This record gives sequence, C-alpha cells and structure tokens, in this order.
Amino acid sequence: MHAPSNTVLLPPLARRTDSRIVFLVLDGLGGVIGREPTALQRAACPNFDALAAESALGRTMMVADGITPGSGPGHFALFGHDPLEMDIGRGLLEAMGLGVEVGYDDVALRGNLCTLDGDGKLLDRRAGRLATELAAPVIQALADAIDEIEGVKVEVHAGLQYRFAAVFRGAGIDGHVCDTDPQVEGVAPLEARALTPAAEKMARIANTFAAQARAVLGERDVANAVLLRGISGRPPLMTYPEMAQLRPVCIAAYPAYRGVARLLGMEIREDVGPTSSLADEVASLEKAWDAGHDFFFLHVKPTDSAGEDGDEDRKAAVIEEMDALLPRILALKPDVLVVTGDHATPGPMIGHSWHPVPTLLWGPWCEPDAGTTFDEVACDAGRFGGRLPATALIRLALANAGKLAKFGA
Amino acid sequence: MHAPSNTVLLPPLARRTDSRIVFLVLDGLGGVIGREPTALQRAACPNFDALAAESALGRTMMVADGITPGSGPGHFALFGHDPLEMDIGRGLLEAMGLGVEVGYDDVALRGNLCTLDGDGKLLDRRAGRLATELAAPVIQALADAIDEIEGVKVEVHAGLQYRFAAVFRGAGIDGHVCDTDPQVEGVAPLEARALTPAAEKMARIANTFAAQARAVLGERDVANAVLLRGISGRPPLMTYPEMAQLRPVCIAAYPAYRGVARLLGMEIREDVGPTSSLADEVASLEKAWDAGHDFFFLHVKPTDSAGEDGDEDRKAAVIEEMDALLPRILALKPDVLVVTGDHATPGPMIGHSWHPVPTLLWGPWCEPDAGTTFDEVACDAGRFGGRLPATALIRLALANAGKLAKFGA
Repeated sequence: MHAPSNTVLLPPLARRTDSRIVFLVLDGLGGVIGREPTALQRAACPNFDALAAESALGRTMMVADGITPGSGPGHFALFGHDPLEMDIGRGLLEAMGLGVEVGYDDVALRGNLCTLDGDGKLLDRRAGRLATELAAPVIQALADAIDEIEGVKVEVHAGLQYRFAAVFRGAGIDGHVCDTDPQVEGVAPLEARALTPAAEKMARIANTFAAQARAVLGERDVANAVLLRGISGRPPLMTYPEMAQLRPVCIAAYPAYRGVARLLGMEIREDVGPTSSLADEVASLEKAWDAGHDFFFLHVKPTDSAGEDGDEDRKAAVIEEMDALLPRILALKPDVLVVTGDHATPGPMIGHSWHPVPTLLWGPWCEPDAGTTFDEVACDAGRFGGRLPATALIRLALANAGKLAKFGA
Repeated sequence: MHAPSNTVLLPPLARRTDSRIVFLVLDGLGGVIGREPTALQRAACPNFDALAAESALGRTMMVADGITPGSGPGHFALFGHDPLEMDIGRGLLEAMGLGVEVGYDDVALRGNLCTLDGDGKLLDRRAGRLATELAAPVIQALADAIDEIEGVKVEVHAGLQYRFAAVFRGAGIDGHVCDTDPQVEGVAPLEARALTPAAEKMARIANTFAAQARAVLGERDVANAVLLRGISGRPPLMTYPEMAQLRPVCIAAYPAYRGVARLLGMEIREDVGPTSSLADEVASLEKAWDAGHDFFFLHVKPTDSAGEDGDEDRKAAVIEEMDALLPRILALKPDVLVVTGDHATPGPMIGHSWHPVPTLLWGPWCEPDAGTTFDEVACDAGRFGGRLPATALIRLALANAGKLAKFGA
C-alpha cells in the first residue's frame, strides 16, 4: 500500500470541531529493552499506568527501522510530516524558536561562541559553556558590528548560553552550505563550503561573517570566535491550520521545539521558558485551555537530557514528576490524549537511538488493548504493534477526536 | 521496503488455473473493540468460528491508520487497487452498477429527484424517498425530454427509489465538476462548478441539464427538480482479467457494488437484485459455480445498513444468517475462501469508521493461527496482525490458490 502523505490526504478530510487533543511529548522518552530496566520501567507512574489500561499502545517509528532521528525529524514525524520528504535545517529551527521571523527567501544558522588558541585552533567549541548573561553582551557586539555583507542584511540574536542565531535576508542566497564546526577540538574551524552552485554566495557570506566576528572578538581570551552550524533556508511546509483545520498551541520551554511549532503554525505560549518547571508547563496548559485552541503540544525536555547523560534514574524521576502532574491534564477533560516521545534516548547508549518509542493513544474510539503499564514492553505488545509509523499518530488522534470526514463515497 | 503495486507486481506472475477463490464481503463488517460487544462478538456463528480455527486471521486496513473509507475505496482496496492512487467517482459506480456502459471519454453522474418550494429552496433532498415504481415514470419523462446538450448526448437511467444515473457522451467533457447537492435543506441547489479549466464545458452542461429537468418537472408538487452528485469520468483501471488472469463473477444485490465489479472486469450475475435474500445470493453462487469462473465476489449489504442504524443486534442477526449459509459455500469446495468487510461500521458510531476490519483467509497454505473465533479480538491477535494492508489480501488469496508464479529466477 502506498505510504500516505498527510499533506495530500488530510486537507480534504479535515473538519473543525470543538474537541480538544493533547500531545504530551516527553523528549527522548524511549529506552532499549533487554539490558538494564529502562527509565519507564524504573519509574513508578501509577497515573500513566492507569491511563495505559484505557488506551491503545504501540511503539512508533519516526524515520525507518534502524534510523536514529534527530529532534527535528522526530518532532516533524510526530506531527505528521514524513522526515524523509523534508529538509528542515537546525539553524531555521533555532531562529524560529527564538521568535525571529525567517522568510522563505532568507537563510538562518545557529552559531556557537567558541575559543581559539593563538594558532587559530579550537580550545573549546562552546567557550566554556559561557553563561547566558556573560554571552549576551558578546553577541550584542557581533550584532552591532555586522549589519550587511555583499548587500545581504545580517541579523544576530542571542540564544541560551553561548548560542546565537543569525538570519540573512537578501537576494540570491541559498542555505545548502556546510557547517564550520569540525565537531572536535585542537583543529581550526572549517571553511563554509557550498553544497550546490546556488549556495556559493551564501558560503562566501558565511566565511566573511566568521572572519568579521573573529575581528570583533579576537582580543578576548574566551569566546573570541564563532562556529556556524545548521545553515538552512526555509522550505515551504504545510501548517496545522492548513493540513487539519487545527488551532494549535505550543507549550515548550526550549527554543528549538518552539521553532518546530512555529513552522507548523502553532501559537506559542510565552509564559514558559528555559527555567520553567514541568508544573509551570502544566499551569500554562491550564491557562491556554479555554482560549480557543483544539490542539495542545506540551513538550518535556529533561527526559532527554537525563538520557543523554546516561542517567536512567534521573530520567525515571522526570517521568515520575510528569506522572504526578497527569491528573491535572486529565482534569481538563481532553477528548484525545497522546503520550509519546520524539525518539529514544536510552541511558545505556548515552544518546539518541533508533528504537521505536513507547506511545499511548487515549480517546473515545481508541480500542484499548491488554496493556496495563506504560513501558516499552507493553507498548511493543500493544494494539498498534512495535513499528507504527509516527506519521500515523496525528491521523489516529484526529479520527478519535471526530475531526476527519470519510475518504471517498 | 517499497510499497508494492499490484498492477505492476501481479500481471507478470499471474497464471490461470482451475482453482477457485471466493471473496465473501460483509459490508461494514468491523466493529470497535472495548465498548459494548461488537456485532461479530454478539453473533453466535459456529460455522465462521470453525472456519477461523483453520484459517489465518488479521485485521485489514483499507486506506491508512485513522482514515475512514467510503464503500468505493474500501472495495477497491480489497480487490488490490490502492485507493490513494485512484480517483473513482460515485457517479461512475452508480451508472456502471445499473449496467450502463460508460466509456473512457464519457462522464457519468448520479442524480436525486428532489422537491423545491416556491422560492426554489430545497424542501426534501430525496423527494420523500419516492418509491421506485413512482419515481420510474418521472425519470422516464426526463429521459424523453433531454437528449442532447451542446452536442453531447445525454442518457438518463432510473435507479432505486428517487435515484437515477445520467451519462454524457461527446467531445471535450471532463468529470471534475462539483455536486449541486448542498447536503442540507432550506437552501437552493448549488450551481455546478468546474474544478479544472478542462471541465468548464461539463459544468455548463450539468447546469443546463438541471435547468431543463426543472422545466420538465416544475409543475409537480414533489420530485419537481434534480440534484446532481458524484460527477465523474472513467479513469483507466486494470481489470482482474488483466491483473491476475482471473475470470471473475460478482453476486451483489446493490448497484454500486456491481459498478465496482464491472470496472474490475467481473461478469455480473443477473439473478440477484435489491430484493434478494442472502440465501438467494448463495443460490446464485451455486448456479455460477461450474460456469467457468475462478473468482467469486459475494457481497452482503445488510450488515452495513444495520451498523449505520446503530443496531448491533440486527447486524449480529445478519452475520448469523450468513453463518447458517456458510456450509453451502463450503460444500462447493472452494480452494480459497476470504471472509472480510470493506470497512468497519461500528453500531456505537452509527457510521463507517477507520478501524481495521476482521478478516479470515482459508486456504491450503494459509498457516492457521491460534484464533478459534471470528471476531475483532481474535483477528487482531492473528497471523496477519492488526494492520494488514487490504491490498495484500488478493495476493495472499492468489498465492494460496496456486495462481502466482515466483518472482525472479
């Protein structure tokens, strides 16, 4: 059977209703079965388990068997866009996440402040993870000094800690340019290279930008240069209002996830930010509940961070913290609730992995299965099986919410 | 793995043999697990259960997770054509179902007799569901009065009750034209609008047809106008003789299903019709058995009608009635028997749904699983799992019947 594209399939079927869908995304939720117990197996989460008993379970595959997704592709798959059919750069996500508008003819990148030694070699790719308040004036100095290169307008915006985003606006630029970050220390930053002839101008501009930044910052001991990453344009992408008649809202603490949400046409709740707790996020959901939305994306970051650190106990503690907040979400009486992750981050692997992600769909017509715990093993044996394409989730959620008309007469 | 297209895969592999395949399609068979018992669960069907014990079970997905199929797409999927790759209009199915030939350059539509008030607004979209014998002379009056519009020949054929089909034959017409049925009463019928520039002429013809029908019928109290629906051309579609070397026959009481069958190159049994019982259909199968066919499509409509009415007990009774007839089908000694539906029509949902459909494949090499009852739960746990693409069924049936050569050397 042909792999269905939601951008073709859903627009003619989608209809607006008052029913409300919550997508609770615990970043990096999944673990790997058969080694030590996974974080989900360690966590005591009576509320998730009770919900699982009334839900259809499965494990979702974001890209393809054996393919480890980055956070961007993972989220786009969850939201119904096939990651193999799109090309969303990390620079675009960073800029959009900081609230910077990026037009379809613009190019964005994310930058790191870094530290070079006297020979121009990298001492520290992140300038000692320079704190936000120390990095801000350094990035402001870049923004003040660099306005325009080859007739292209340059904007520099501070991010968290040593990170910044730059947006380039002007004629004839294309984002298909390699990173200047060599990913290792002890070597010089790379030249920006064009991947296509159309990107030659942007590659020159990126190199000029890096050289001018070095000229501005070169006298400093730390944070005396920049690394440029994720250089990317903004491809056309169907939004949720266009794809499914939804009026979506995003509750996410971190910029990249807000960037994904903005690209999908979601409104962004501004009452949460990097220092928000999970309880703050749930409070934001409560405030947004009666504000005319019908799709609520709630993103939980610390599960992934704990997995990246190899700390399954800390990851389990985050899951338990979310479990304790679940009754407040259920008290809102959503029509459909999905609990999932954007990829696995198994503690023993200290990073993302390709393993399908535990997923729970709760709704009026979800067909609960025999699973009564929310973990990898129960989900693998669940209604949707162990290899549910993640792009199917939004269709199942919309169907359960009564938001899809039938296909054909 | 690439999703296989049967129109590419099967023709070089198909071979003609004497083995016989029966596809028993109970329309709207599926229910939804986890609410009240489904019709299949309520029904006492010892014969289906005994067959299930010797069969491979599964639940088939017609279009995609979460997508609710109409009857047309549901049947085409069962017969191996991917519904996402085709565009079969309801008008075409209606005309073909009435036995009217529709050429590849013709356009067909289905019409309703309707009743307008003095202001031209719809009082009744179906003219009080005017009975067939009362509607026939009204439709004949249309057929007599309207022969040709803009050089295009017009044919009008009576259907069941207030329904008719019209076929337009001539140069430069294209079926991409919107319905004139507004789907609600109290408003005027819509203008027929072209969806593509190529369809402008057909849109004008449809509007002229509606105006002329109003002129012919306008003096009547009821059935004084027409609504035009499902305007559509006939796209090229590979038939069963072409796809699989089959000599198929259709036993179906209702026109739309005969239309599907005719498009697939099936012969139509004329000894059943809208008033036939299930026993009449089985008797027709028995008569057709030794008439040179090797594929028998037997369509059972009342399961769907009962589900549409929310009456699970009546749906269960229809299943029991079919169960009692099953021994007569088995007595014919088919080589392969498939029992399935074209979509789910769960009583509690009072309409079609997206839930995968219980399916049973019985054949010499089917690999029976542990399931010993024919219902949604046993099928979900069966050999083929809960998400078998419906387009795989015909391949599995042909393979069990020894009708497919091996792929590659």
